[in-house]
Amino acid sequence: MYTVSVRDHMMIAHSFKGEVFGPAQRLHGATYVVDVEFRRHDLDPDGIVVDIGRAGETLRRVVAELSYRNLDEVPGFTGHNTTTEFLAKWVFDNIRSAILRDELGPGARAVESLRVTLHESHVAWASYEERLRNGS
Amino acid sequence: MYTVSVRDHMMIAHSFKGEVFGPAQRLHGATYVVDVEFRRHDLDPDGIVVDIGRAGETLRRVVAELSYRNLDEVPGFTGHNTTTEFLAKWVFDNIRSAILRDELGPGARAVESLRVTLHESHVAWASYEERLRNGS
Amino acid sequence: MYTVSVRDHMMIAHSFKGEVFGPAQRLHGATYVVDVEFRRHDLDPDGIVVDIGRAGETLRRVVAELSYRNLDEVPGFTGHNTTTEFLAKWVFDNIRSAILRDELGPGARAVESLRVTLHESHVAWASYEERLRNGS
Amino acid sequence: MYTVSVRDHMMIAHSFKGEVFGPAQRLHGATYVVDVEFRRHDLDPDGIVVDIGRAGETLRRVVAELSYRNLDEVPGFTGHNTTTEFLAKWVFDNIRSAILRDELGPGARAVESLRVTLHESHVAWASYEERLRNGS
Amino acid sequence: MYTVSVRDHMMIAHSFKGEVFGPAQRLHGATYVVDVEFRRHDLDPDGIVVDIGRAGETLRRVVAELSYRNLDEVPGFTGHNTTTEFLAKWVFDNIRSAILRDELGPGARAVESLRVTLHESHVAWASYEERLRNGS
Amino acid sequence: MYTVSVRDHMMIAHSFKGEVFGPAQRLHGATYVVDVEFRRHDLDPDGIVVDIGRAGETLRRVVAELSYRNLDEVPGFTGHNTTTEFLAKWVFDNIRSAILRDELGPGARAVESLRVTLHESHVAWASYEERLRNGS
Repeated sequence: MYTVSVRDHMMIAHSFKGEVFGPAQRLHGATYVVDVEFRRHDLDPDGIVVDIGRAGETLRRVVAELSYRNLDEVPGFTGHNTTTEFLAKWVFDNIRSAILRDELGPGARAVESLRVTLHESHVAWASYEERLRNGS
Repeated sequence: MYTVSVRDHMMIAHSFKGEVFGPAQRLHGATYVVDVEFRRHDLDPDGIVVDIGRAGETLRRVVAELSYRNLDEVPGFTGHNTTTEFLAKWVFDNIRSAILRDELGPGARAVESLRVTLHESHVAWASYEERLRNGS
Repeated sequence: MYTVSVRDHMMIAHSFKGEVFGPAQRLHGATYVVDVEFRRHDLDPDGIVVDIGRAGETLRRVVAELSYRNLDEVPGFTGHNTTTEFLAKWVFDNIRSAILRDELGPGARAVESLRVTLHESHVAWASYEERLRNGS
Repeated sequence: MYTVSVRDHMMIAHSFKGEVFGPAQRLHGATYVVDVEFRRHDLDPDGIVVDIGRAGETLRRVVAELSYRNLDEVPGFTGHNTTTEFLAKWVFDNIRSAILRDELGPGARAVESLRVTLHESHVAWASYEERLRNGS
Repeated sequence: MYTVSVRDHMMIAHSFKGEVFGPAQRLHGATYVVDVEFRRHDLDPDGIVVDIGRAGETLRRVVAELSYRNLDEVPGFTGHNTTTEFLAKWVFDNIRSAILRDELGPGARAVESLRVTLHESHVAWASYEERLRNGS
Repeated sequence: MYTVSVRDHMMIAHSFKGEVFGPAQRLHGATYVVDVEFRRHDLDPDGIVVDIGRAGETLRRVVAELSYRNLDEVPGFTGHNTTTEFLAKWVFDNIRSAILRDELGPGARAVESLRVTLHESHVAWASYEERLRNGS
């Protein structure tokens, strides 16, 4: 299995609902350093997993959707705690959609799975990983 | 698959038995930066893998058992080389026990597997990972 | 010159006023990984710059004052942009005050200067440094 | 599953063929920080995955083969783009060969799989992983 | 003293002349992770050292001049070994020039000194620092 | 001012005397990741601060003197707490001595000052810096 990973970041505000969150129930914020790992069993004819330039641009576009926003006011997140885990899945979904509409080039359709990791501090991080389709 | 990871550290002395260890057969020591990754397929109703506050407290309690100790004198380790690999398994066992006695909250029982990584320097680290029970 | 440094972090929400900030004029947030460097020319009789345990506790108390808060609503910050630079100075001021009221032990009065660094992402950080008193 | 990882690095020049590479079609270069993860289900009688001293020496020997070279002129790479992914596989192949000829000691034959990661910058890295033989 | 730092990177090929360089006399290459620290004694009315957005864009433009190039063929470098130290000074000179022609905004003229650090691997880095003008 | 830095590490056991150390009065240990920064105002004719190969070899030799040792039994340390600060000074003294007896080559005599940093964990580090002679 081959992988390629790219990194970017986003800075957001949010609050959580539920006693388990303690002081994080208050409006606060986070910097998420976001890593996306693309995985496939074979390299393409150019010798790559994915066009790393396009991968980086797609990740930049995805994090820009949330960057400098209060996630409590983002319509699609109503009723959800935008935890690090939840946001890892949200980034995953957006990168998968970009692959499926060929934003990373037709070759990227051979990517079999993704792992998205969000680092929230030097002592905590979360990730989401999944295969991209049934057949792979 | 979702994951959440937390980090802490411990500083210990020990020595190894066996020619393979060369100069590390002498009494020496190490700082271990310890990462614990908790894994499960679905988030709980709060949108989390595990209560990260409790996870951090449990990890702190576990590393405190060995912190500032000479492992050559810890009764449970008699007859074992307390290598980085061995200690990764020891931390794993202690975190698993804490989960099973609900120290991380009843929701943590849904955690399916753990990966524990001990960084011993900027150029070497070791880990242990395993599912928590047969059914998962 | 000897130095000792300790690290902790805080997660906050805020917004900035001024066109120079672009999208960061919106309510957003940040994780700040906070380093405090204590400096003095000679070690104390125990062979240390400062009691690192107390230094860590003081830093934890200082970052806890802002952790999980919306800085736009913190009375003392009214009329200020709580930039990374500004907050580095705020942490500096609080650590200095703690030293001057002997919270880090009487020996810490020999500390001559501090440097506080706040890392806001993997690609940006800011710091503030100053001597603690005229004579040093 | 237990793992042990060691790190080293190499500095090389190369160029790529194919429009997908944009400016990287020009002769340029890279520092690769190289991590090799050794994996097996059980520790050996000494309590280790592999002799970490020998593992580090083998990795040093492997990266030395390419260090300070122009990969465009390395005979074995003719007709290939020496991408980060491709080189991760090349390091994998060389470490596997070293294990199979007992360069890491006879115990290393119990290693079941390897993961090799090459970090090319603070925002990009690639890896190759595979089992070492059919039976494992 | 306040500082703000930004990070980017460049990937280049080059060779060195002189026996001291050993195998690095051959054509090879490097990834340089480049940090620029801007320093001044007082914050501007917006509460910043420098417009971090413009600072990042300037750094990106500066490293782009050398990115994906063979430095042995860059006319301005003829007769020089493009060591990490030398390149740190080159980045310094280019950032200083950008400040002096107001590319980072007129406020950036209050920046008093710069420190440029180039990380060439996980075990080696180099820097250049200097005041920007006589009066400061 | 130009600088070049190299990194290595050592793993040691020790204990401290004095109530300020709390549990660290017990025999324990540490991994120290050791950075040495060499500083001078001008580059030599080869375009370097110091022969980085020799600098790395010297650092390796210096840390090897303490590696895998119980510092409580090292004769030269009797009566001293071998704190991180104290050991930073010890490494400084040894690197300075190596420079003065031309172990890093005669050009290294132009090095004006050194900064030695010992990282003891992901949340604590210490350093010692000083000019090498009166005239510089």
